[in-house]
Amino acid sequence: MTTIQQQLDLIATCSQDKIGVTRYSFTREHKQAVKIIKSWMLGAGLTVSIDDAGTLIGELKSQNKKAKTLLLGSHQDTVKHGGKYDGIMGVLLPILTIKNIQKKNIQLPFHVQVLAFADEEGMRFPTALLGPRALAGTLKKEYLSLKDKNNISINDALKSFNLSEKKILKLKRDRKKIIGFIETHIEQGPVLEKKNLPLGIVTGIAGISRFNLSVKGYSSHAGTTPVNYRKDSLLGLNEINLICENIAKKNDDVIITIGEIHNKPNVPNAIPSESNAVLEFRSINNKKRLNIEKKISNIIHQITKKRKLQFKIVKTYEQSAVLCSKQLMNTLIKSFKINNQTVFKLPSGATHDASAMSDLCNVAMLFIRSKNGLSHNPKEFSSEKDMREAIKILETAIINIT
Amino acid sequence: MTTIQQQLDLIATCSQDKIGVTRYSFTREHKQAVKIIKSWMLGAGLTVSIDDAGTLIGELKSQNKKAKTLLLGSHQDTVKHGGKYDGIMGVLLPILTIKNIQKKNIQLPFHVQVLAFADEEGMRFPTALLGPRALAGTLKKEYLSLKDKNNISINDALKSFNLSEKKILKLKRDRKKIIGFIETHIEQGPVLEKKNLPLGIVTGIAGISRFNLSVKGYSSHAGTTPVNYRKDSLLGLNEINLICENIAKKNDDVIITIGEIHNKPNVPNAIPSESNAVLEFRSINNKKRLNIEKKISNIIHQITKKRKLQFKIVKTYEQSAVLCSKQLMNTLIKSFKINNQTVFKLPSGATHDASAMSDLCNVAMLFIRSKNGLSHNPKEFSSEKDMREAIKILETAIINIT
Repeated sequence: MTTIQQQLDLIATCSQDKIGVTRYSFTREHKQAVKIIKSWMLGAGLTVSIDDAGTLIGELKSQNKKAKTLLLGSHQDTVKHGGKYDGIMGVLLPILTIKNIQKKNIQLPFHVQVLAFADEEGMRFPTALLGPRALAGTLKKEYLSLKDKNNISINDALKSFNLSEKKILKLKRDRKKIIGFIETHIEQGPVLEKKNLPLGIVTGIAGISRFNLSVKGYSSHAGTTPVNYRKDSLLGLNEINLICENIAKKNDDVIITIGEIHNKPNVPNAIPSESNAVLEFRSINNKKRLNIEKKISNIIHQITKKRKLQFKIVKTYEQSAVLCSKQLMNTLIKSFKINNQTVFKLPSGATHDASAMSDLCNVAMLFIRSKNGLSHNPKEFSSEKDMREAIKILETAIINIT
Repeated sequence: MTTIQQQLDLIATCSQDKIGVTRYSFTREHKQAVKIIKSWMLGAGLTVSIDDAGTLIGELKSQNKKAKTLLLGSHQDTVKHGGKYDGIMGVLLPILTIKNIQKKNIQLPFHVQVLAFADEEGMRFPTALLGPRALAGTLKKEYLSLKDKNNISINDALKSFNLSEKKILKLKRDRKKIIGFIETHIEQGPVLEKKNLPLGIVTGIAGISRFNLSVKGYSSHAGTTPVNYRKDSLLGLNEINLICENIAKKNDDVIITIGEIHNKPNVPNAIPSESNAVLEFRSINNKKRLNIEKKISNIIHQITKKRKLQFKIVKTYEQSAVLCSKQLMNTLIKSFKINNQTVFKLPSGATHDASAMSDLCNVAMLFIRSKNGLSHNPKEFSSEKDMREAIKILETAIINIT
């Protein structure tokens, strides 16, 4: 019997090179992957088609022709030198689930479509989520002229797949005919592993905001300026970062990160006069995130005042949180219980196809444990056992959708 | 009457361009400056010569031919776009002091030489302190082949000034014939201004040590790694910097600075995995500095352990402190008291000609208040009044040297 790992190993060979997996949208590797996904779909008794956004669709029709459709799936593409699970596992597991349901001769009262989206990572073109946006009707025509680094536009790329730039803008689905979208995905973080659990139910996809923070002091000679007379912008920024950490520790549904800093003049013997940072907030609770942003802004005010520094803070990005559907979550919870799986809920800090799908329909996500919390890395790993557990959960959930 | 400021304004025109003063050693500007300094020296009744290190020497011979020599002076050169006071003020003020002494017909029981060193800042060649090192016998032959960015060696530069590369290595003075070296210099820091004092007596020139500190964590996705599961190298470094600040605040004779940092991968949505810094310590108390270095090293150990980070610390530079001569300091203290000037002592965090001269003889330094603590800056400023006060102090001190 072919294991799930072997199937993922096979499609992982559709890669630009041998360092992990590098598979961008509308490339030779994508074409090769489409062939394999198609064979998976056909093997599960699904009818295969491709829409004009390059989304491969495997469909199982219900006997009730007027039935709604349940959407499953994820994306086929990867980051540069990514792993074998991110995206593609969320295509394969629902296919194998439907295969099981077919084997058991269970008739579903709704149609099912497994979607393999072309581009979620946004590695090739300066945009992403082409497939789900097309379905949700949020894809704008102007995106299609965006170009990759070889000056090939999305339109050109679509053509190379025999897809129509005109039809892509007409893919919008009728929300009344959709039950919802359930995405299965590797967690890409350490939480499930730390909790010693194979699977988790996603509560929502975090909203994100980013700020450019600039702290200004006064540069003087490190040797001639005693500590009490300094206006050291870096020390100010350091204090802010530690307070952000403290606040994030006290609010486990909010994540605060300073990942990027720039210090001026950045020489050993001059006191830093300007220290800039990107401050990122993530939470599935928009209101709480906005409150904490305000709180931190006040703290920055206090710290810089105390240290006689100046500061400037500018919001550069804001993306609202997407909450998972209570109803679909409850279906998953029920399935966890039936399968004697510990019910554990967690937010997703990363963006997924489900984020864009939420503009069309109810969404839910099932997370699978990542070894060492690793993702976007050749060492990304989920175990055969965990993946089989996920199929069981998906099967029970699908059967129990009403 | 010509003011001191006017004299400094005149020599400030010997500059590469008009943004402050840029005057490197053995350049056209240096040649122009030599002419002006010579005229100052001649105007004060000094006999002028130049030694083979390019040090302009203005001498006042005592009637006692076997007398020792008191050395005064500082450097003629500047940093790029530096100020009008750093260095050159310490040449002009002793000349004006000797002029006063001559006017008053006071006979000194020792010879006096005012020295205008060619190169203290080390801007042109990758070394510095040529003049005082030559006098102290610490100048090594191999330094002379060091080149500037136009591929001109120090030897070539000396030749362009009609100086001899052979004789420069024979300039070593007989320490028995030297009373000491008193350097007058702009403070280059904010201490005198904060204390509302025109002048200060330097206790010593700080020893310096530098360390490369590398803190290593684990990079993961900022969105998917809750704060409690992070190994954020930047937060570790931030905590270290704040503790260094605290320790420096409690030990006013030790200065600790992190001026330079480098953070990896340094992107907004990845947790920092490696944060490097240059940690600099300065103190005129070598023992205390070494103790605090050890203390901080222990604290780094604790912080990184607590945060599950790794660290590496390597000493890259060490320069011992130079203590000023008690005897010469007492002469200055006496002079301050005679002139009703508040006696205030402070260390020098920066290196000066006196550092290299300390290998030859006793040294002392008189600091003059810098406006806003500024130096190495076109806005560098000391007032006419403060400079006149310095001349009074120098005059009384010189007369009182026994």
